Amino acid sequence: MEKLYVIKIGGNIIDEAEKLNQFLQSFSSIKSPKILVHGGGKLATKLAKQLGVEQQMIDGRRITDAETLKIVTMVYAGSINKNIVAKLQSHHCNSIGLSGADGNCIVSHKRGSNSPLGVGGIDYGFVGDVDAVNSSLLKSLLDQNIAVVLAPITVDTNGQLLNTNADTIAQEAAKALSGLYDVELVYSFEKSGVLLDVNDETTVIATIDPSSYKKLKEEKKIFEGMIPKLDNAFAALQSGVTKVIIGKAEELDQLISGNSGTSIVQ
Amino acid sequence: MEKLYVIKIGGNIIDEAEKLNQFLQSFSSIKSPKILVHGGGKLATKLAKQLGVEQQMIDGRRITDAETLKIVTMVYAGSINKNIVAKLQSHHCNSIGLSGADGNCIVSHKRGSNSPLGVGGIDYGFVGDVDAVNSSLLKSLLDQNIAVVLAPITVDTNGQLLNTNADTIAQEAAKALSGLYDVELVYSFEKSGVLLDVNDETTVIATIDPSSYKKLKEEKKIFEGMIPKLDNAFAALQSGVTKVIIGKAEELDQLISGNSGTSIVQ
Repeated sequence: MEKLYVIKIGGNIIDEAEKLNQFLQSFSSIKSPKILVHGGGKLATKLAKQLGVEQQMIDGRRITDAETLKIVTMVYAGSINKNIVAKLQSHHCNSIGLSGADGNCIVSHKRGSNSPLGVGGIDYGFVGDVDAVNSSLLKSLLDQNIAVVLAPITVDTNGQLLNTNADTIAQEAAKALSGLYDVELVYSFEKSGVLLDVNDETTVIATIDPSSYKKLKEEKKIFEGMIPKLDNAFAALQSGVTKVIIGKAEELDQLISGNSGTSIVQ
Repeated sequence: MEKLYVIKIGGNIIDEAEKLNQFLQSFSSIKSPKILVHGGGKLATKLAKQLGVEQQMIDGRRITDAETLKIVTMVYAGSINKNIVAKLQSHHCNSIGLSGADGNCIVSHKRGSNSPLGVGGIDYGFVGDVDAVNSSLLKSLLDQNIAVVLAPITVDTNGQLLNTNADTIAQEAAKALSGLYDVELVYSFEKSGVLLDVNDETTVIATIDPSSYKKLKEEKKIFEGMIPKLDNAFAALQSGVTKVIIGKAEELDQLISGNSGTSIVQ
């Protein structure tokens, strides 16, 4: 099967024009079919402040009320998504920017306060948990040599837009396309990979498989905040994704070539 | 050839949720392949005001400086476009929302102050005049029974986003697709059609062809503001579009069935 890269780019790099541009240049040079999933960055928070829309955060998660949904739709699906697409076009990488509503490509449902993700009965507002990915539409675009750029906004079956975690979108897209492609899922962020010592960027663990993961956890050598990411990575592998790579956004070339970051394999 | 409708929806209806919803319901019921091109409405002006970005208008045209470009990109390609797409999904009309940057589907160049459209040497800022429409991408989406919703934002060959007149986008898309479809171009707005008496909505001219147009102009029976629209309509017909219809957005069903509005034919 043909290789497909699903690459999640973290929020912080989106706020730095030069780093973002360098990242997009590296992304453009990938010859295989590719999907880029972007987060939100600080723009939405900044705009909300300018407009006097108070932002409520619980455990680092944004509560998406109706006014905040308007803002994230504008910023994620409008500003960030179209600027990434335009920049990719300037690097001669033909790309198309979509929200989950477009072609119903990522359909979700509003998270209930009784959902396992709605920890402690919290109402997260207009937040969606993914139910389905329209892989045939995505494939039809990839087949036309078009890179797909996904904004973290989805839609429910009643046409309600919903704010959705970009990590989850990347994972669900990777899983859904794993029947059609040999999928590698890349989480790129500000760290060099999964670290043995969270304060030392030289302690990247090159490879983690289920047995070494078990041992690392038993020895409490994995930073707590990393555990949900790794659990999700193994879940993706069990759903057909070939490999998950976690590493630094500025090293995308090396992440792809296997010379940097942490590879999670079965 | 199969029929294709390219339908432009004017700005004013976008600001009225109920009218817009009714329009989108009518749009959804069209069985043929279809493209919707939307304008901007008052949202961008409102947001600019809230953010303290001063708007300069010359002859009813917005001067698009860098800050205004950010605003119209968010509002047109983010807010309005995604809300229309989500609403269409709720009416079981699968649709995809694109800016011109997406798949390079509408490529333009920045209007120079020496352009014939840059009347009197005015610098309109980040405004684009259309050069090319990627009809193969649009066709591949229409072939998947997906309605295309175009925002009035385009891109130049250097990846610069540009604010672009929605009427022009509708016309250029209609012309570009006229080799592949039997294209009807519908301009829907607040008036019932081309009127003999601009203050009397019952004086709609049912059909205009080149000879009756000449006569109407000689007799000064056409409202001056209508002449550029009609000139563009005849230009579209000369470029292969089958029919141009001008009429009331709230009467979309009847416009399509030929029972309302003005038909411009060769």
